[in-house]
Amino acid sequence: MIQQRKILLQESEIPTHWYNIVADMPNKPLPPLHPATKQPIGPEALAPLFPMELIKQEVTQEKWVEIPDEVRNLYSIWRPTPMFRAIGLEKALGTNCKIYYKYEGVSPAGSHKPNTAIPQAYYNYKEGVKKIATETGAGQWGSALSFACKLFGIDCEVFMVKVSYEGKPYRKIMMNTWGAKVHSSPTNLTNAGRSILEQDPNNPGSLGIAISEAVEVAATHDDTKYALGSVLNHVLMHQTVIGLEAMKQLEKAGDYPDIIIAPFGGGSNFAGIAFPFLQNNLIGKQKTRAIAVEPTSCPKLTRGVFRYDFGDTVGMTPLIPMYTLGHNFIPSPIHAGGLRYHGAGAIISQLLKDGIIEADAINQTECFEAGILFSRAEGVIPAPEATHAIAEVIRQVNQANAEGVSKTILFNLCGHGNFDLAAYEQFLNGKLVDFEVSQAEIDASLSQLNTPII
Amino acid sequence: MIQQRKILLQESEIPTHWYNIVADMPNKPLPPLHPATKQPIGPEALAPLFPMELIKQEVTQEKWVEIPDEVRNLYSIWRPTPMFRAIGLEKALGTNCKIYYKYEGVSPAGSHKPNTAIPQAYYNYKEGVKKIATETGAGQWGSALSFACKLFGIDCEVFMVKVSYEGKPYRKIMMNTWGAKVHSSPTNLTNAGRSILEQDPNNPGSLGIAISEAVEVAATHDDTKYALGSVLNHVLMHQTVIGLEAMKQLEKAGDYPDIIIAPFGGGSNFAGIAFPFLQNNLIGKQKTRAIAVEPTSCPKLTRGVFRYDFGDTVGMTPLIPMYTLGHNFIPSPIHAGGLRYHGAGAIISQLLKDGIIEADAINQTECFEAGILFSRAEGVIPAPEATHAIAEVIRQVNQANAEGVSKTILFNLCGHGNFDLAAYEQFLNGKLVDFEVSQAEIDASLSQLNTPII
Repeated sequence: MIQQRKILLQESEIPTHWYNIVADMPNKPLPPLHPATKQPIGPEALAPLFPMELIKQEVTQEKWVEIPDEVRNLYSIWRPTPMFRAIGLEKALGTNCKIYYKYEGVSPAGSHKPNTAIPQAYYNYKEGVKKIATETGAGQWGSALSFACKLFGIDCEVFMVKVSYEGKPYRKIMMNTWGAKVHSSPTNLTNAGRSILEQDPNNPGSLGIAISEAVEVAATHDDTKYALGSVLNHVLMHQTVIGLEAMKQLEKAGDYPDIIIAPFGGGSNFAGIAFPFLQNNLIGKQKTRAIAVEPTSCPKLTRGVFRYDFGDTVGMTPLIPMYTLGHNFIPSPIHAGGLRYHGAGAIISQLLKDGIIEADAINQTECFEAGILFSRAEGVIPAPEATHAIAEVIRQVNQANAEGVSKTILFNLCGHGNFDLAAYEQFLNGKLVDFEVSQAEIDASLSQLNTPII
Repeated sequence: MIQQRKILLQESEIPTHWYNIVADMPNKPLPPLHPATKQPIGPEALAPLFPMELIKQEVTQEKWVEIPDEVRNLYSIWRPTPMFRAIGLEKALGTNCKIYYKYEGVSPAGSHKPNTAIPQAYYNYKEGVKKIATETGAGQWGSALSFACKLFGIDCEVFMVKVSYEGKPYRKIMMNTWGAKVHSSPTNLTNAGRSILEQDPNNPGSLGIAISEAVEVAATHDDTKYALGSVLNHVLMHQTVIGLEAMKQLEKAGDYPDIIIAPFGGGSNFAGIAFPFLQNNLIGKQKTRAIAVEPTSCPKLTRGVFRYDFGDTVGMTPLIPMYTLGHNFIPSPIHAGGLRYHGAGAIISQLLKDGIIEADAINQTECFEAGILFSRAEGVIPAPEATHAIAEVIRQVNQANAEGVSKTILFNLCGHGNFDLAAYEQFLNGKLVDFEVSQAEIDASLSQLNTPII
């Protein structure tokens, strides 16, 4: 007899619909505003950037949105993803809490990002788009979109943050292998990039700058659209396949989570696993805690303010109601590149304001320690982003142990760390440092904002 | 409705026994000989290197060997592995051949190697061994054994071929993350290493040299044993979990392979998928073709001779009856480091001699072209070793198409290429070269042998 670790689903159990939490929210997210007029914008304002079907999904109030068969067919390349009972981790922690994790690293790109890359590429393809421009930080999103575009014969152009372009060459090659063109951002190809380089030729780049460049390319070329890997409503909705599968899997295991934990960058990872369960909270059937875990060096949820802000550095995107550190905030160079973003999306921000979700911030050394422990107990070496969830699991387990209670904890292991081993080496050699953000630094960044206060 | 790609098994379907093909072979493999006396050796001669249970497995004639529950429990970290119907590849090739692949890259180490690393660590643990020494080329085997040793609290010391140690730093960090000590071989730590370095301080290392070093460490330390990742009978047997699962999966799909294809280095990958099916050939029930694919730059199966030879460079191991290029043969620096070994194991060599299996050799540019095609059609970027199988699949499909027939082809996708992207970059930039081996080169290497001729 062997103790069961994995809870698997058949391909026929891939969800047929995405879940749109907006339908169940007591307070709906505030509308985006035009960057110049600061008036609410309608769907048509987004038409230069996105295909119409995605714009509809961005603003829909429908609770369930059907997943096209073509998308489900491609999801089946790696979905349903396995759920694991973390037997090894439970033993290592000496707890009688039950720990489950959903493992999204089995996708070809190694993270949850293809869950939205595939439908985004699909809707662009359906509307005849020839090219998609995007940005990427650590490279998870860029590689996912490169793969998705190749499946539909769409050209893909990726603006990759310079520090990552130079520090993570394998991610770039992965995108090239799937046929994408990758630039080190800031580039000389856009006005946004040129203006940044004029001020500072050695600018290391940031996600905000790279977004400005990709948006500019899409806005100025008729055959080109833009795609974003997080933050926006439709992106978060696409990721709910994670949580919907997880619900079925836990049902098979006869369990339901007391606590759900996921890393937090722009929100897609967290929303993906948590929203389907929060549905039961919102209709009064459950009281699951959902904890978003951000790095202490980029603490928008725990130390930011809730106001309108731009999604990019240059100020080209609509103004979004968000918990933000200010769009000029430059996060320290932690290894979890996917979490280095100044703001949270509109839905997440409203949920946090309304007390429906929680947030915590953790330093990277605590995260890598958790990552090493996990890899030795469970096998997979987690992505730096994913280690934030594991570190929080350990905090919650320790608290439950101290209180003498047993909790059922579910977390999202959003990706493997095969491309991040240089960070593990730093940690193993005792060279990994933490970055503290002073209140003065946050205040200085926020004081530059002249965007509407909520 | 979505078209099914994956055929999954439950953990309860992990095989309960390994299959030992020796029991069904018409001509049994010839015995190993003592390196000095050149007389057949008994099990006791292997006792300094291996725990007794593995020595028993090395020489057993039993058809089925039970897998301990502890091993099945740890196999369940990643097993059963998925089988895929290669819908995307079939479409890309425009064929009505059916192509299936077993994907072993889902293991924590990213290849099939943990299938034998776990039981080897287990039997060492049961016999109180404190440390295991081993060698690794590209790092697949070393990382698998590091992980397995960590699960049982055994120290692991890895001699990694210098060129790979320097060229694949991520593999080394992976081993460190799982707690292993890794040396760049040749080292100053062993007589074998020192003697090599005395002749050539810049020696780039080879698998044969690294084996000499690891064997020496095990032979000269009471608390230390040795472990090998391929070639030996018990290693090949452990890998049969691949083929045994594949049989169940194809049965669920209502299919049976006409052709089985796997890359060939020392034989564990090929044996793993092919042997359980060859059982049906040997008892006269099926006529499946099994093709082992080696690189043209290391062509022991297609251009070597069948005679006794050493497993290592220095000549410390027993003499094994093998197809060999000579133990001093230095393969060209192709990217499929796992296939750069001068000889084949005793079982494989006997099967080839008896016409029960076939072999083919392919150049690395043809292999990488196949790898790129595969990654764009199926998602996974394959390890350079695995691309050899894919290139052969394409050859067989083209032949079937030309003949107007449909074949059912099964191949082993033995690992992902996440750590091998530098090789893909070379290929994409048109800088990948092929290496031809002249007959004079092979003759020169073989002429140095003074080992018994069969």
